Amino acid sequence: MKLPEHLTPYLQRIQDRLLKSIPPDLPVSLREPIDYFLHLPGKKVRPLLTLFSSLAVGGTLEDALPAAIAVELFHDFTLIHDDIMDQDELRRGVMTLHVKYDESTAILAGDALIGLAYRELLCAPLAHRGKITEIFTEALVKVCEGQALDKEFETRRDVQLPDYLDMIAKKTAWLIQVACGLGAICGGGSPKAVQHLSEFGFNLGMGFQIQDDILDFAADEVQLGKKVGSDFRMHKTTYVTLKYREIWQSLPVWQSRYPRDIADFPDIYHFQQALADMGVLTAGQAESDHFIRQALAALRKVTPPAGQNPLYILTEFLQHRQY
Amino acid sequence: MKLPEHLTPYLQRIQDRLLKSIPPDLPVSLREPIDYFLHLPGKKVRPLLTLFSSLAVGGTLEDALPAAIAVELFHDFTLIHDDIMDQDELRRGVMTLHVKYDESTAILAGDALIGLAYRELLCAPLAHRGKITEIFTEALVKVCEGQALDKEFETRRDVQLPDYLDMIAKKTAWLIQVACGLGAICGGGSPKAVQHLSEFGFNLGMGFQIQDDILDFAADEVQLGKKVGSDFRMHKTTYVTLKYREIWQSLPVWQSRYPRDIADFPDIYHFQQALADMGVLTAGQAESDHFIRQALAALRKVTPPAGQNPLYILTEFLQHRQY
Repeated sequence: MKLPEHLTPYLQRIQDRLLKSIPPDLPVSLREPIDYFLHLPGKKVRPLLTLFSSLAVGGTLEDALPAAIAVELFHDFTLIHDDIMDQDELRRGVMTLHVKYDESTAILAGDALIGLAYRELLCAPLAHRGKITEIFTEALVKVCEGQALDKEFETRRDVQLPDYLDMIAKKTAWLIQVACGLGAICGGGSPKAVQHLSEFGFNLGMGFQIQDDILDFAADEVQLGKKVGSDFRMHKTTYVTLKYREIWQSLPVWQSRYPRDIADFPDIYHFQQALADMGVLTAGQAESDHFIRQALAALRKVTPPAGQNPLYILTEFLQHRQY
Repeated sequence: MKLPEHLTPYLQRIQDRLLKSIPPDLPVSLREPIDYFLHLPGKKVRPLLTLFSSLAVGGTLEDALPAAIAVELFHDFTLIHDDIMDQDELRRGVMTLHVKYDESTAILAGDALIGLAYRELLCAPLAHRGKITEIFTEALVKVCEGQALDKEFETRRDVQLPDYLDMIAKKTAWLIQVACGLGAICGGGSPKAVQHLSEFGFNLGMGFQIQDDILDFAADEVQLGKKVGSDFRMHKTTYVTLKYREIWQSLPVWQSRYPRDIADFPDIYHFQQALADMGVLTAGQAESDHFIRQALAALRKVTPPAGQNPLYILTEFLQHRQY
């Protein structure tokens, strides 16, 4: 599933402005890796949400563009640093930054992107600058908290689904919430509209992340751009592994048929079989759908579900993506 | 040389507030390393400069405290990430963060400190918040540029002293300039006063960094808290190595006596001998002193050199420190 064609001009607008946000006089060891990363194919969901949230409250694209770029640069920073921490070698089908260059370069490129993100933010309409800088800063702290929890979960054995949902709320959903909230603020939306669009973004983010976890076990490798089951191989705690454990504990039949610990599966294929047998992915999809429904309920309070409304289109796109 | 005792209450004030800037509900894998780092003994020169710059323009300590804390947290972020990139194992006599914990933890702690720094900044007096956020953001980009240049210099063979001065201007002097400038702004100083105090900070930073480079070859190991000559062993391009090359090129006698490339010295002691013989450190000290004189000239435009004025005391302290 591809983004509908009539959204392409927005994507182009974002990409153009994104590249312009990188000062040409940066030292080459900083400019090149950032340039490399910004040219990776990406869905640009977050900045699109910012722009469309502004439009949804009657604002302009122009007013929301700086915040949209800031959100995307911020997101890129988190991807670059997370890839180092998670030792991921592929992203969107190509080498991650620390593999293409080295860790130092990737650390520094990420740091610089935070600065460049704030710089963009400070180009937003003056009336909203203080408020959005505050929200953006909270998101920076939150996303670090989320990543810290994610790393903690790698060694903790007592993690339950609610802990996990709290983690992805901070690591993923918060920034998507902020993407929508900033757009609504920059577009001059009422406090109520800002709140509803933030709520829309948060729930969309939750649904999105749960689906992401599911896709790691179900997606097409070529489309996903990385090996399926990387979470399995890294013994990563994700929605899927926790849901597996939850369902496993609920019925003796599963306990007699499958091991308690995912590490005791001989390979990913046996684990995938168990997931299908126990309905883990179906249950996960249902929870993801539940969040998406909540997102849509919040969105409807701001703007009716018209066929061409890009926020509804984006939501549908995210819900049905295969990678 | 220690900071005069009457400055201790200011230091205590900074340390108290610094620790309060770390939210107690941070995930433990983030809170602990940050806590560890904030408890390392440090000179806290930058936040002191911020506070005293506010006082120098007739402002209060309270008004400048958020900016002072932001500057220190920002500085800590740069130290933590730089230590990873430079593979330094000791800082202020104890383990660096990525050695005490691991690289992922250190990357994330640094990232979080940027967020916490901005959060402090947004507690500054409302009237100045926009301006100081802008200045702070420029410093973030600049310091990344400086670090990028520093890393580039490790492999470039064509670096000259002016390139090096440009690098330390970005990597070191800029933040010290900003420390003073923010203090002056938060204290309600006139644009002229802000400019003079910024100029003071910049030149102080340049003098400080050159002296830092000299100390790596001349300091007492115990006081320095790391091995003397680490720059030499890492084949690091510093003021000292570039000044050595410059003086070496200026006279045939040096060319016949010593190798062109520092890597060709059998050990640090032979290199130290050459430095003494050629007057490299003396020349460096003279350049450092020159910057300090410029700093003092700018400072005098704002406040007269009274015996107890803390900005003069800090300058003297930095100029005569042995580590």
